[in-house]
Amino acid sequence: MHLPFEYDHAAIGEFGGTTPTTSDFDRARVVILPVPLDRTTSYVPGTRTGPHEILVASSHMELWDEETQTDVHRIGIFTMPEMEFPFATMGEVMAEIRRVAAELVNRGKFLIALGGEHSITPPIVEAVAAKHPGLSVLQIDAHADLRDSFMGTPLNHACAMRRVLEHAPCTQVGIRSLSTEEAAAVPTLTTTIFYDWNMRRDADWIARVVDTLSETVYITIDCDAFDPAIMPAVGTPEPGGLSWYEAIALLRRVIESRRLVGCDLVELCPMPGNVSPNFLCAKLIYKILSYRFGAESHGG
Amino acid sequence: MHLPFEYDHAAIGEFGGTTPTTSDFDRARVVILPVPLDRTTSYVPGTRTGPHEILVASSHMELWDEETQTDVHRIGIFTMPEMEFPFATMGEVMAEIRRVAAELVNRGKFLIALGGEHSITPPIVEAVAAKHPGLSVLQIDAHADLRDSFMGTPLNHACAMRRVLEHAPCTQVGIRSLSTEEAAAVPTLTTTIFYDWNMRRDADWIARVVDTLSETVYITIDCDAFDPAIMPAVGTPEPGGLSWYEAIALLRRVIESRRLVGCDLVELCPMPGNVSPNFLCAKLIYKILSYRFGAESHGG
Amino acid sequence: MHLPFEYDHAAIGEFGGTTPTTSDFDRARVVILPVPLDRTTSYVPGTRTGPHEILVASSHMELWDEETQTDVHRIGIFTMPEMEFPFATMGEVMAEIRRVAAELVNRGKFLIALGGEHSITPPIVEAVAAKHPGLSVLQIDAHADLRDSFMGTPLNHACAMRRVLEHAPCTQVGIRSLSTEEAAAVPTLTTTIFYDWNMRRDADWIARVVDTLSETVYITIDCDAFDPAIMPAVGTPEPGGLSWYEAIALLRRVIESRRLVGCDLVELCPMPGNVSPNFLCAKLIYKILSYRFGAESHGG
Amino acid sequence: MHLPFEYDHAAIGEFGGTTPTTSDFDRARVVILPVPLDRTTSYVPGTRTGPHEILVASSHMELWDEETQTDVHRIGIFTMPEMEFPFATMGEVMAEIRRVAAELVNRGKFLIALGGEHSITPPIVEAVAAKHPGLSVLQIDAHADLRDSFMGTPLNHACAMRRVLEHAPCTQVGIRSLSTEEAAAVPTLTTTIFYDWNMRRDADWIARVVDTLSETVYITIDCDAFDPAIMPAVGTPEPGGLSWYEAIALLRRVIESRRLVGCDLVELCPMPGNVSPNFLCAKLIYKILSYRFGAESHGG
Amino acid sequence: MHLPFEYDHAAIGEFGGTTPTTSDFDRARVVILPVPLDRTTSYVPGTRTGPHEILVASSHMELWDEETQTDVHRIGIFTMPEMEFPFATMGEVMAEIRRVAAELVNRGKFLIALGGEHSITPPIVEAVAAKHPGLSVLQIDAHADLRDSFMGTPLNHACAMRRVLEHAPCTQVGIRSLSTEEAAAVPTLTTTIFYDWNMRRDADWIARVVDTLSETVYITIDCDAFDPAIMPAVGTPEPGGLSWYEAIALLRRVIESRRLVGCDLVELCPMPGNVSPNFLCAKLIYKILSYRFGAESHGG
Amino acid sequence: MHLPFEYDHAAIGEFGGTTPTTSDFDRARVVILPVPLDRTTSYVPGTRTGPHEILVASSHMELWDEETQTDVHRIGIFTMPEMEFPFATMGEVMAEIRRVAAELVNRGKFLIALGGEHSITPPIVEAVAAKHPGLSVLQIDAHADLRDSFMGTPLNHACAMRRVLEHAPCTQVGIRSLSTEEAAAVPTLTTTIFYDWNMRRDADWIARVVDTLSETVYITIDCDAFDPAIMPAVGTPEPGGLSWYEAIALLRRVIESRRLVGCDLVELCPMPGNVSPNFLCAKLIYKILSYRFGAESHGG
Repeated sequence: MHLPFEYDHAAIGEFGGTTPTTSDFDRARVVILPVPLDRTTSYVPGTRTGPHEILVASSHMELWDEETQTDVHRIGIFTMPEMEFPFATMGEVMAEIRRVAAELVNRGKFLIALGGEHSITPPIVEAVAAKHPGLSVLQIDAHADLRDSFMGTPLNHACAMRRVLEHAPCTQVGIRSLSTEEAAAVPTLTTTIFYDWNMRRDADWIARVVDTLSETVYITIDCDAFDPAIMPAVGTPEPGGLSWYEAIALLRRVIESRRLVGCDLVELCPMPGNVSPNFLCAKLIYKILSYRFGAESHGG
Repeated sequence: MHLPFEYDHAAIGEFGGTTPTTSDFDRARVVILPVPLDRTTSYVPGTRTGPHEILVASSHMELWDEETQTDVHRIGIFTMPEMEFPFATMGEVMAEIRRVAAELVNRGKFLIALGGEHSITPPIVEAVAAKHPGLSVLQIDAHADLRDSFMGTPLNHACAMRRVLEHAPCTQVGIRSLSTEEAAAVPTLTTTIFYDWNMRRDADWIARVVDTLSETVYITIDCDAFDPAIMPAVGTPEPGGLSWYEAIALLRRVIESRRLVGCDLVELCPMPGNVSPNFLCAKLIYKILSYRFGAESHGG
Repeated sequence: MHLPFEYDHAAIGEFGGTTPTTSDFDRARVVILPVPLDRTTSYVPGTRTGPHEILVASSHMELWDEETQTDVHRIGIFTMPEMEFPFATMGEVMAEIRRVAAELVNRGKFLIALGGEHSITPPIVEAVAAKHPGLSVLQIDAHADLRDSFMGTPLNHACAMRRVLEHAPCTQVGIRSLSTEEAAAVPTLTTTIFYDWNMRRDADWIARVVDTLSETVYITIDCDAFDPAIMPAVGTPEPGGLSWYEAIALLRRVIESRRLVGCDLVELCPMPGNVSPNFLCAKLIYKILSYRFGAESHGG
Repeated sequence: MHLPFEYDHAAIGEFGGTTPTTSDFDRARVVILPVPLDRTTSYVPGTRTGPHEILVASSHMELWDEETQTDVHRIGIFTMPEMEFPFATMGEVMAEIRRVAAELVNRGKFLIALGGEHSITPPIVEAVAAKHPGLSVLQIDAHADLRDSFMGTPLNHACAMRRVLEHAPCTQVGIRSLSTEEAAAVPTLTTTIFYDWNMRRDADWIARVVDTLSETVYITIDCDAFDPAIMPAVGTPEPGGLSWYEAIALLRRVIESRRLVGCDLVELCPMPGNVSPNFLCAKLIYKILSYRFGAESHGG
Repeated sequence: MHLPFEYDHAAIGEFGGTTPTTSDFDRARVVILPVPLDRTTSYVPGTRTGPHEILVASSHMELWDEETQTDVHRIGIFTMPEMEFPFATMGEVMAEIRRVAAELVNRGKFLIALGGEHSITPPIVEAVAAKHPGLSVLQIDAHADLRDSFMGTPLNHACAMRRVLEHAPCTQVGIRSLSTEEAAAVPTLTTTIFYDWNMRRDADWIARVVDTLSETVYITIDCDAFDPAIMPAVGTPEPGGLSWYEAIALLRRVIESRRLVGCDLVELCPMPGNVSPNFLCAKLIYKILSYRFGAESHGG
Repeated sequence: MHLPFEYDHAAIGEFGGTTPTTSDFDRARVVILPVPLDRTTSYVPGTRTGPHEILVASSHMELWDEETQTDVHRIGIFTMPEMEFPFATMGEVMAEIRRVAAELVNRGKFLIALGGEHSITPPIVEAVAAKHPGLSVLQIDAHADLRDSFMGTPLNHACAMRRVLEHAPCTQVGIRSLSTEEAAAVPTLTTTIFYDWNMRRDADWIARVVDTLSETVYITIDCDAFDPAIMPAVGTPEPGGLSWYEAIALLRRVIESRRLVGCDLVELCPMPGNVSPNFLCAKLIYKILSYRFGAESHGG
């Protein structure tokens, strides 16, 4: 935006809350794409306000990461405006998300999508997989999301991973809720499930997760993967789940040993009066970026 | 439900919280149909919990109405279980609501539907109009809901009254929000609009509203018709709107001078920690019943 | 309920949200009894809405348990309507709870009571102990509840376990709050206390807890036993406490090595805007049932 | 409290938040007595925190009343510490409230009691009536509270006015909820009811209310008398009810034409995150004092 | 912002939620300036989030105004980014607000400032008065804000109107709270106060208010002027106050009979879980614009 | 306070909620000083209500500590009234806090200050260090607070520890957020930082922390040091952080091996509807007292 005179002002809508010139689209290494898909239509909180609240929270983060000793925002993080969906059908919505994701991926950007519902993941994976043959997908989630259809449609968020499997094999981590029908289908699918309950008794689960992944990886994180203690702001808060340090240890290990080519964070449903889930999401994104690009930021 | 032994227990899910024998379906004069249609799919409040919260609130009402000096619950009020919608498309959902409404209307019941979104109204009006030729519809609402389509579909709640007009002429009361496109379309439609702003300057607006109605009337009430002071629990709380006493004065006048054959109350979006909107809805339903059937309850 | 025509509808008030024919009382192996005792008298949340919110949450659970690889709801779970208490004195209330519990236990049902205040436990234990001589009670709780009387009455919830001790010896787990007077009385009572603070330093505390129990066991769980991180919805949220995995590990071990003949879950005080505590309670009940009856469900 | 050195500090627990020397008990004209009776026993909001929140709010009021052009706090307002109830039975609780009220009334103080439940009113009225023969009581309330007993006891808050009638005749204003049984009993009782619904159509209702009162008057105000728009913080928020200006007009007229000898304000149930109901209560008390004693404050 | 490819996206941060080309700064007739001054420094709601929540709400408004029959957004409404205040002292903050306001006013823009605290008003009035000699100020507020200093500083929000009086005479409307000291000072100041309590008894108060104003007028609105029923989201919610229709009637009359040259809306303190106060603010701004510029929008 | 007659009453504002005669100032070993410094000026929650909510919570604690087997309140805990700050500048505020702290320390009291913002710590440390040469400070916090100035002032809470370093060397524990500038300054400062992320991988971090401390220690605890799971009620809830048992293990070890001469607990920002953070703070203070003085309480 060009203003007719200068003054100190906020950078609402920019991840990290900064407006460095390096954030210009062309120079940016990373692009944040808010995809607030939520099939309610009124002005009431739900997953629709998730991306916005993550961006607000991100402006309250410090930009130094003490773990990696880097300030990764220097590599350029460009935040796209929120997608809107004045479309007729979910099929058209999915096609548009796929198109936009492809536009970004094909321009060489590292894409981080912020949901919205989990149903945004399949079209993004399809776009990323088209660019990166041999892709595998790591899902961090409480729910398997492996129904073949739900409420009469294959595009429901409860079917998200079933649709993803049409484009890439998956590894599912933190799972602690699935239906009897999904449990019956699992053996026939190209997925490996790490049940949360088993992870508690396996000191080495992170290494085992990494072993299942191919060289090129996409990560999709459903907020309900986390322990509801730190992430109550979800639609179905399943007891158990990952702690903050488990999650970032897993992410660091995957990023150090594989090539991460994109990710999404979905299903945050902001709670009135409690900003801590929003803030966790903002820091999680920044941790991923610090692990993935921190080393590149030193000359920034 | 047949229990193997007796004890004092609650009647959760029954309007008024009582379980008199006269509430058996066949003997009931009135049937409450909860239609919690809400196109979100997670366990988070929205209009989906509206019918349930109205029923909970109704169990805390006194059953005597001091205005009409009657205890109308004696005529028999039967509460149906909440409809569920495991369907593929909104078209199928609409057809099922129409079928269930017809089943009730054709059995001679006075139907009160509890939403859920305003999109439930057109199929109910269609069923009622089929039974009662010459029907007119009184809508009490902040929004005109006269778009021809919205987000690519004619079945959106923003189009509810445009769809209703296909089955019956309308009178719209309390309107204080419409789009430029709707404003342009109004002159071509079989609707009479009483703008909230004009009602404030017209001591006789109630009589004028009644004059527009045919002999047989259906009423649809969107909670956002009320002043947000008493009804903040809606998706878009437009300032202005009806007070409690204005609303019940209008309802009483309409019911005394026309034949009311059904109604619905929609778009309650319960707020955590504030039960007063829920309670208002329960009493509003009971007021309508007291005006409509109170005189029949004395021999009950 | 017999409806005059069929449609898809919800099963509000049924644990698990399903209405299989096997849920008929006679065929049900398990009976859920909601006992919303709460000595407030207005329409304001407290422990009174606890049972209801647990049942609502239970309808959002998946019915497959991935840990035991079973779908235990097939054994038949019948949910009684909520008890109501139009009685004069707490003594009469206690007598009625005891009578209803005995009606169920004597019909061979596995009883799960949902509170309500902790004062509902003594009459239930009395009924269960009458049927099962040699019973011991495992209490999972933050508070010892061992006062001899409180606010002038021996029937207060702060005295619940002192009353239980009149019917069966106890083991108390997770304790981290008691008064100076209770601490002085402990050595004279037939109870074994596992203090939360000690449990943190004893890798083998679960085995030690099991050793204190007789062959036949009743379990009473006060929600405040859990870490307030996952269970803030209690009257006095004491820091420390059990995690989800500690709790279910304890429950599994007890159920596998002893004969569990009944249980209760009390003192949930639902919080506006945060469903995660309610959901935890629903899953906890289902875990107990999966451990206790999962193996019997396969032929279901 | 005597402090060993001086510093600016808050006067928590003092109505108006000030600590003038004229507030010493002996010199005070008015005494505020907090009576947080609430029969729950855990640390969860209810009417128990009502008196405290009113006192907190009162410290944010300006002490000038622009209507009467007075600063009434100069006459001396002494705030007693909150009563506590470590008693066995409600009968004993009632006796203690009566004793404490008598102690104050007999010392010539103008008593303002802050509830707590409405059941605190009968013993206070008994103490005041003993001192002031010929007393009449003005109740401002949504509910008639005329049951003879409720939940097996005559001391329930739903019976408060039935008990008050044993000591003084009543006038009940703002009533818009009563049971069929209460409606049947009204003609036999020494009470005059002004139904809220009638008040809306009677421009002269205030004068009519005053006419029913004897020379010496006690006022009891249940917060639910007010429109839930301005007072949602109650147990059962009945639609309709008094506005702020209606209430203070009534109070001013009564105080100017009769001799007010005491009052209470009960049933505030503070809502998390909304201080406006608490603040209304504080200002209402201050308005009553300004009308009653403002003229005496000028030489203060 | 220039994006490398097109897609439907939101216009977060734009009043009205639209991004018409006419909103370019140069062509815009109106400029919205968010001034979220709030002297807390952590990430917790207060008045700081007020401007942002008003902008979010504004994107849910319909852009047609049914009262004036206009769509005023066509005249061009440009929303500046939020001011930030990395300054040493309140004096420097005030100077910067004055400078930015002057930059806008001197470019011929109609300025609408969104607070933040009321202390932002004096520097804006100073800038506007410098451009428009003979300016008078209309304040709509519950509090007189006439202290000469507060907490040791003349720049506190409790002193805002005392500072404004240094630049222009004032008319204060809706006042219902002032200190004894302020009451004593009023006769010496160039202000006319319309007390809320008097306005209730004066059918003609709006005309009388207009009479006090000079030809050129600036309006400052403190949200607490409104009845807390519709505006609980303020720091000190004083009972009484303006209704929605009173406020817009006053604004319309002033705008039709005087020349409005700027305004501000301050002290919104958004409440978690209740969007209605935010929405009221957005519509209030749009009403002011419709009255002021609606007639100019027809050729837009 | 001397009352003219006796009755059971609450001790609002006293830590522990008791009013033993040993709490008289002169005989008290410990003094609680509430310092609700919060630079907002309206009646809206923030850190200002922190001390009050901790005191309310403390009245719901049991006074027996099962870990140390002591009832430490017998040593005498005197609670000062809340400080108020009608001062001109932050410099004056700081001087007054220092003076009051010195008054207490010089009378031989063990001071526990309750914030309020973290900016209250430097003047308290200055007063304590003047009395106890060789003092070192242990800070438990998520943020380093090592900026040299912020928002133009060196007295901001973001600079608190930089100011403390002017009086005593520090050890900082739980740190997981600092700016790039702070990170650069750390090597030049007399502070030792234990990063939260490192603490997770170092079983022996408590011993290492103790080793850095001199013989005489002051502890300052910022609530955001804790995991947001148990402490969401802070301004910036950083993921990660200390659990309850880690914190009390650290405190016990420090107190047993060093001489603790004072402490503060700051930055609690109470959340509407969730008392668990407040209760944690109350118990944390009581734990510190039990470790420090429990052994002295036996003869009490």
